[in-house]
Amino acid sequence: MTQYVYAFSEGSKEQKELLGGKGANLAEMTKLGLPVPPGFTITTEACRSYLAAGTEPGELRVQLTMALRRLEDDLGRRLGDRHDPLLVSVRSGAMHSMPGMMETVLNVGLNDASVKGLAEESGDERFAWDSYRRLLQMFGKTVLEIDGEVFSNALDEAKSAQGVATDVELNVDSLKGLVSTFKAVILEHSGDEFPQHPREQLDMAIRAVFDSWNTERARLYRRRERIPQDLGTAVNICTMVFGNLGETSGTGVAFTRDPASGHSGVYGDYLVNAQGEDVVAGIRNTLSLADLKDLDPSSYKQLLQVMRRLETHYRDLCDIEFTIERSKLWMLQTRVGKRTAAAAFRIATQLVDENLITMDEALQRVDGAQLAQLMFPRFDAAAEKTRLGKGMAASPGAATGQIVFSSKAAEKAAAEGQAVILVRKETNPDDLGGMIASQGVLTSRGGKTSHAAVVARGMGKTCVCGFAELDVNSAAGTATVNGEVLREGDMISIDGSTGEVFAGEVPVVSSPVATYLESGLDEALKDTDPDTGELVRSVDRLLTHADSIRRLRVRTNADNAEDAARARHLGAQGIGLCRTEHMFLGDRRVLIERLILASGSEERQAVYDELLPLQRQDFVELLTAMNDLPVTIRLLDPPLHEFLPDRTELSVKVALDRAAGNPDPDEERLLAAVDKLHESNPMLGLRGVRLGLVLPGLFALQVRAISEAAAGLKAQGGNPQVEIMVPLVGSVMELFLIRDEADQILATVAQEQGVELDIPIGTMIELPRAALTAARVAEAAQFFSFGTNDLTQTTWGFSRDDVEGGFFATYLDRGVFMVSPFESLDVDGVGRLIRIAATDGRKRRPDLKLGVCGEHGGDPDSIHFFHQVGIDYVSCSPFRVPIARLEAGRAAVL
Amino acid sequence: MTQYVYAFSEGSKEQKELLGGKGANLAEMTKLGLPVPPGFTITTEACRSYLAAGTEPGELRVQLTMALRRLEDDLGRRLGDRHDPLLVSVRSGAMHSMPGMMETVLNVGLNDASVKGLAEESGDERFAWDSYRRLLQMFGKTVLEIDGEVFSNALDEAKSAQGVATDVELNVDSLKGLVSTFKAVILEHSGDEFPQHPREQLDMAIRAVFDSWNTERARLYRRRERIPQDLGTAVNICTMVFGNLGETSGTGVAFTRDPASGHSGVYGDYLVNAQGEDVVAGIRNTLSLADLKDLDPSSYKQLLQVMRRLETHYRDLCDIEFTIERSKLWMLQTRVGKRTAAAAFRIATQLVDENLITMDEALQRVDGAQLAQLMFPRFDAAAEKTRLGKGMAASPGAATGQIVFSSKAAEKAAAEGQAVILVRKETNPDDLGGMIASQGVLTSRGGKTSHAAVVARGMGKTCVCGFAELDVNSAAGTATVNGEVLREGDMISIDGSTGEVFAGEVPVVSSPVATYLESGLDEALKDTDPDTGELVRSVDRLLTHADSIRRLRVRTNADNAEDAARARHLGAQGIGLCRTEHMFLGDRRVLIERLILASGSEERQAVYDELLPLQRQDFVELLTAMNDLPVTIRLLDPPLHEFLPDRTELSVKVALDRAAGNPDPDEERLLAAVDKLHESNPMLGLRGVRLGLVLPGLFALQVRAISEAAAGLKAQGGNPQVEIMVPLVGSVMELFLIRDEADQILATVAQEQGVELDIPIGTMIELPRAALTAARVAEAAQFFSFGTNDLTQTTWGFSRDDVEGGFFATYLDRGVFMVSPFESLDVDGVGRLIRIAATDGRKRRPDLKLGVCGEHGGDPDSIHFFHQVGIDYVSCSPFRVPIARLEAGRAAVL
Repeated sequence: MTQYVYAFSEGSKEQKELLGGKGANLAEMTKLGLPVPPGFTITTEACRSYLAAGTEPGELRVQLTMALRRLEDDLGRRLGDRHDPLLVSVRSGAMHSMPGMMETVLNVGLNDASVKGLAEESGDERFAWDSYRRLLQMFGKTVLEIDGEVFSNALDEAKSAQGVATDVELNVDSLKGLVSTFKAVILEHSGDEFPQHPREQLDMAIRAVFDSWNTERARLYRRRERIPQDLGTAVNICTMVFGNLGETSGTGVAFTRDPASGHSGVYGDYLVNAQGEDVVAGIRNTLSLADLKDLDPSSYKQLLQVMRRLETHYRDLCDIEFTIERSKLWMLQTRVGKRTAAAAFRIATQLVDENLITMDEALQRVDGAQLAQLMFPRFDAAAEKTRLGKGMAASPGAATGQIVFSSKAAEKAAAEGQAVILVRKETNPDDLGGMIASQGVLTSRGGKTSHAAVVARGMGKTCVCGFAELDVNSAAGTATVNGEVLREGDMISIDGSTGEVFAGEVPVVSSPVATYLESGLDEALKDTDPDTGELVRSVDRLLTHADSIRRLRVRTNADNAEDAARARHLGAQGIGLCRTEHMFLGDRRVLIERLILASGSEERQAVYDELLPLQRQDFVELLTAMNDLPVTIRLLDPPLHEFLPDRTELSVKVALDRAAGNPDPDEERLLAAVDKLHESNPMLGLRGVRLGLVLPGLFALQVRAISEAAAGLKAQGGNPQVEIMVPLVGSVMELFLIRDEADQILATVAQEQGVELDIPIGTMIELPRAALTAARVAEAAQFFSFGTNDLTQTTWGFSRDDVEGGFFATYLDRGVFMVSPFESLDVDGVGRLIRIAATDGRKRRPDLKLGVCGEHGGDPDSIHFFHQVGIDYVSCSPFRVPIARLEAGRAAVL
Repeated sequence: MTQYVYAFSEGSKEQKELLGGKGANLAEMTKLGLPVPPGFTITTEACRSYLAAGTEPGELRVQLTMALRRLEDDLGRRLGDRHDPLLVSVRSGAMHSMPGMMETVLNVGLNDASVKGLAEESGDERFAWDSYRRLLQMFGKTVLEIDGEVFSNALDEAKSAQGVATDVELNVDSLKGLVSTFKAVILEHSGDEFPQHPREQLDMAIRAVFDSWNTERARLYRRRERIPQDLGTAVNICTMVFGNLGETSGTGVAFTRDPASGHSGVYGDYLVNAQGEDVVAGIRNTLSLADLKDLDPSSYKQLLQVMRRLETHYRDLCDIEFTIERSKLWMLQTRVGKRTAAAAFRIATQLVDENLITMDEALQRVDGAQLAQLMFPRFDAAAEKTRLGKGMAASPGAATGQIVFSSKAAEKAAAEGQAVILVRKETNPDDLGGMIASQGVLTSRGGKTSHAAVVARGMGKTCVCGFAELDVNSAAGTATVNGEVLREGDMISIDGSTGEVFAGEVPVVSSPVATYLESGLDEALKDTDPDTGELVRSVDRLLTHADSIRRLRVRTNADNAEDAARARHLGAQGIGLCRTEHMFLGDRRVLIERLILASGSEERQAVYDELLPLQRQDFVELLTAMNDLPVTIRLLDPPLHEFLPDRTELSVKVALDRAAGNPDPDEERLLAAVDKLHESNPMLGLRGVRLGLVLPGLFALQVRAISEAAAGLKAQGGNPQVEIMVPLVGSVMELFLIRDEADQILATVAQEQGVELDIPIGTMIELPRAALTAARVAEAAQFFSFGTNDLTQTTWGFSRDDVEGGFFATYLDRGVFMVSPFESLDVDGVGRLIRIAATDGRKRRPDLKLGVCGEHGGDPDSIHFFHQVGIDYVSCSPFRVPIARLEAGRAAVL
């Protein structure tokens, strides 16, 4: 027989999955001998069974009866007894905290008879009728799903009828009247009388908690928080204790240390003569917990002991709910408390210093997302702001500057030392310079994976995108938001952490953690208040510890010396991905156009001859910036038509010029080239190694530039550690063909320059086939680097552009995804391929180096997976390097 | 120690992989006691080792010395002895026959001294010097790679100097002179004297054979024939016997039955006083083998006995090479002989009737490609033809008719009963009607996987595509080929089996096998000659046997009742894929346009209301044609913009109209819709289940139409066996969402119509993720159908369109593929996913039905793989159903 019901004395805090967070912690406190009102927990398993079958399992009814009888026997009271009634609360409690999402019913067991018994037993008639009123209200709203306003309106009427302002002032008659009114409301709205039978109340309340798991609201919340939808909730049945039995009673919440700053001390609120819901509802002003010391010194002392016991036991910040019933302290709930990012770091190191936890454990108390929060500048919370609206929080941070509508204008303004925000409908690769020159980027279209968002995150640049209320008219140099016109040069401020957009300049507060990461501890501690100093030191200690224990190395994705140097400061141990396509934008684009239009090998060679010194210089700079550390250079990946104008636009232009009798021969030639290169699915087209095999000399040029750069630096005493990476390999044969050519060039250059060159050649694993045939691919590859972006695209068969465009929103809404697989690695699908490739590849070549260079390399959840499957390094944008270092450390102790 | 050398007496015919085909068969004949000249074989392993290291393994040299000494001892002669020299031939012999690809050197062992010994011993000085001349010529050409023309020119000079016409007439002096000349040629061209040491000759010849494995020519041949490149060749060293020792000597080739027709009897050629190379060279006219009966009755009788022995032993048609040296018969080679498709079928059943093989074995002697050849009509070989050129053989068959340049013209002409050939630059989905109406299709662009080719193959319609010399000007109604102008109405003939295009009408011979398959045995045997009758009966017996033993069921891909009925005649056991998109072309396209442009759910519903009766009728017809058999209907798969005009073309049109001050509001609206739906990678975009989830009501409409059609037929006593298939599923969640909706509709319709509906719902597996997460997908899917086309696209990350466009030709050339993965399943990559999905899916749902509905379902090689991994059925175009039946039978006995 499955055990569906656990007495508090049977469970422990390890059983959260079965008993829910609240139930497990109630059990734990009971085990510790803390004053917990007796009760029991109905398991999440019972909930799942109920939800699947639409009715509670028969065994649950039986076990519930038995648990109830045991409780009644222990306390010597009966549920709903007409003399000395036992009352219980019914509270949901899932494995993961879902604040405000689920349901609670208090005072279950009261009815027309037992209310009198309660009055008699407590000697407080008003209290008894107020308790009954509360049950009817909560039951009506929660269990019978009657609009809560119906009850609160009636409550207001009663108060005005009696001529008082607060609930507490209502007298017995008013409360009795309210009970009648509420019963009538229930009959009217539900069609049934309020159930007088206590067990019926209990059963219905339990069912309501079960059902509350599946409300739209709860489902949405879980989706957002990445909580699985099929866990179910537990239900806690707990003997009622009352904080509303007069001046010696009360209820409160407390933290064992400050959840905002992490400082130790006693933090909390207390409300005299009240029940828990009154604290949350904020109806009356609460007292500080310190005030309890004077009101009830004995309970206060006991509470401090309990809190100290809890923190020592849980070895972490705890938050608690308690009630004092006529000077007797009862613990109603505890859990490890939420905290701000800064508090998380401070508390973690404090607990280490207090010898409560080890450094390894401390690392588990913080995460990369918290570190990221600490790295960004923020808007001054105290400043006045004019909010224009809210887009998507695409790349965190706070940025303020003059509006510019073009990349040119951005670059011009930046050259003049002006801070600007680039405002566009959407950005494209040509906006790179403009984005670099800007403080932040604001777009009206596109989501978190649009070009603007991805590039901005890569740069660590603030970005708000998909701000749909914004209507951009670049040509006119204006934009409108809900009728308000913004002009080029107007000040604007964007918050990439919240998506908010403000008119005017909002003062920005810089981040000391960022200063620490970029310039070291000494620099960050200069002119800093002790609080901030403590935070920076905490971050330093935890990050240093992470570095000392992690197995995963952290490299960066960087295409130029500047990014490389920056990433190196942030702790990057090399470059995992240098994309060479960025080296063909701007002025050099013309050369690529010439290459495409070349009519034979001679014309092509002429282009290569011009490109060679430029490419070589690119690599010299990069390798110099990363001297002594590995630098993986990817040969040209994108399809060539990405360097040409848009086909439709150009076709229209040519057609119009022709119609006007004014054809432009250059454009006509260009269009012919564009038409020739046109592909219906460029992502699945002629690019990567395919282009390298089809277009003679292209990869050879790059390999020669790389090897000449390395040889030159070596000859000058440098220590370049370059690696060549071939993109889009699907078959080992492709790699063999490229290798044959590359090996020859490497040998030639080594001989020409009189140095030894040891340049490993490896491959991206970004196609399912490469992963599936990894054993063979490893014959030709000295390393694998997983291109998780492309691998996600092909494994799922959708492109990021489409995700952006449309159906992804629906998919997130309808729960097909918990989170975009472009943000966090799809472990079941894409991850399985990575596992296959890692296993098979290493079987063939045990020393095969495995890296990740897709954007998942900087995603905390994904990093843990990469650690597990034995990846050697991740590579991410410079900004995310510290986050990856921290998470790699955390992965190592998990 | 690895054994690199096997005496003929050591091997057997099973050792082809190690000894090559020739060596294994020489060993087998030796074992049978047939008169084989003694010798030994150097293994393919030795070759692989040589090719990998660039030099022969040391052990090989030792083993070769020992084998040679044994041979010398057995024969009592020494290689190159100056009195009674042993001479040997050195011949390549790979596992797979590669005719003309590899090298042979005869008479190894002759030198300036031994030539005299040979003259003395044979008593024929002329013979000895002629043999030496031959050695020098072959050695120079083959081993030293001197241009063969240098030798043949010298030979011609010698003949004219002596005043004779043939080699045989050359006298001893001329031959001696030639020997001197050839030695001088060798010295001049190779820089070295001809090696006089016999062992040096032998070593060099062996190395030359090894090297011949890797010539460009050999690599290309293997690629074309799908022979792996890494097998290597064996080398056979065989004692020389001489057919050129006068009138009692000779050489010949023979078959144990007619390889063209399959008839039993003695077929072959004989040449008196000649060596084998002379037969092949065709210098002199050969005699029929029957003539040998008179020339040398004893040898003839012995030869017939040997041939009978061989056929009985090999239990198949054998071809042989033999030499008679002074009336003594020697067998030089035998192998199972090649034969025509018709002969293959006839011989297979003949051997069964002769009790030499079983029906199971007979099935192994034929294949689907041969059956396909027999199904097509052909041009009369005897007819006069005017060849215009050659395109790609895209869909086999022979077709002749008047040229039409548009589908409309084709339909009009067909309606008038005229045979037409549709001639286009390329075809698109709108040409479907025109293609149906035509005898064949000819395009100037596109390859074997272009729209024209794929659709034509699907229809079993003749197609030649990529005929680049053809310049089509549809507007003018003309096309030119190399200056010759073709006009609409001109007769043209195309051969889809060879790619040839002919001017005028070439008479076509129809296929009796096709008649048999479509109309049954009786119909095919009407007015047929006995030869053809025998062929048709053979096909019938083998196909019937295949049907009786195969486990794989064979369904068809069909979208309409006509195709369904046709496929049923051809043996289809249901429909594995009904594509519903074809039901929205033509007149209904307008409705889809309206659906796209609909501004809300009401407008959409109006379109659905119009579509419902049309869709229902589609399904009623289809299910009626396939009554009693399963019919899998796929919900709409392609992106909606496929129903709209091309974006670039429309943009140009709209821009021009605007510029002319004459904007067309309809076009403007259409362009807005096209722009809205535009995707950069439509293959990876909003289609399949994604569209079903995003566009409310679309799948519901189709499910309703399907269930109403099924319910209606059932109510009328029919037995529709319909199944609903969801395309492009990547996650089980997608399928659950669609199922939820579909199940409701099915239940509603069943209730409305008062019948029970049992309609399984399954999914395509066409994305890697679906395969990788098959265990979960199987929770929601009652069947899997592998869409191998899309699965190939996503696994490799290339689209068919791109394959077409460009780099595929390079890939086939450079050996990345042996064959297009769209033609024959890529077992290592795509196949691994299929295996994973089959295994994991069945683990979760043991009765999961597994089918294949991509084009690989009709590909012989792929079918064997599908059988192996436990697929339940394949589905292919109607035309390929018999081929699939045959191959499924073959797979079952392998």
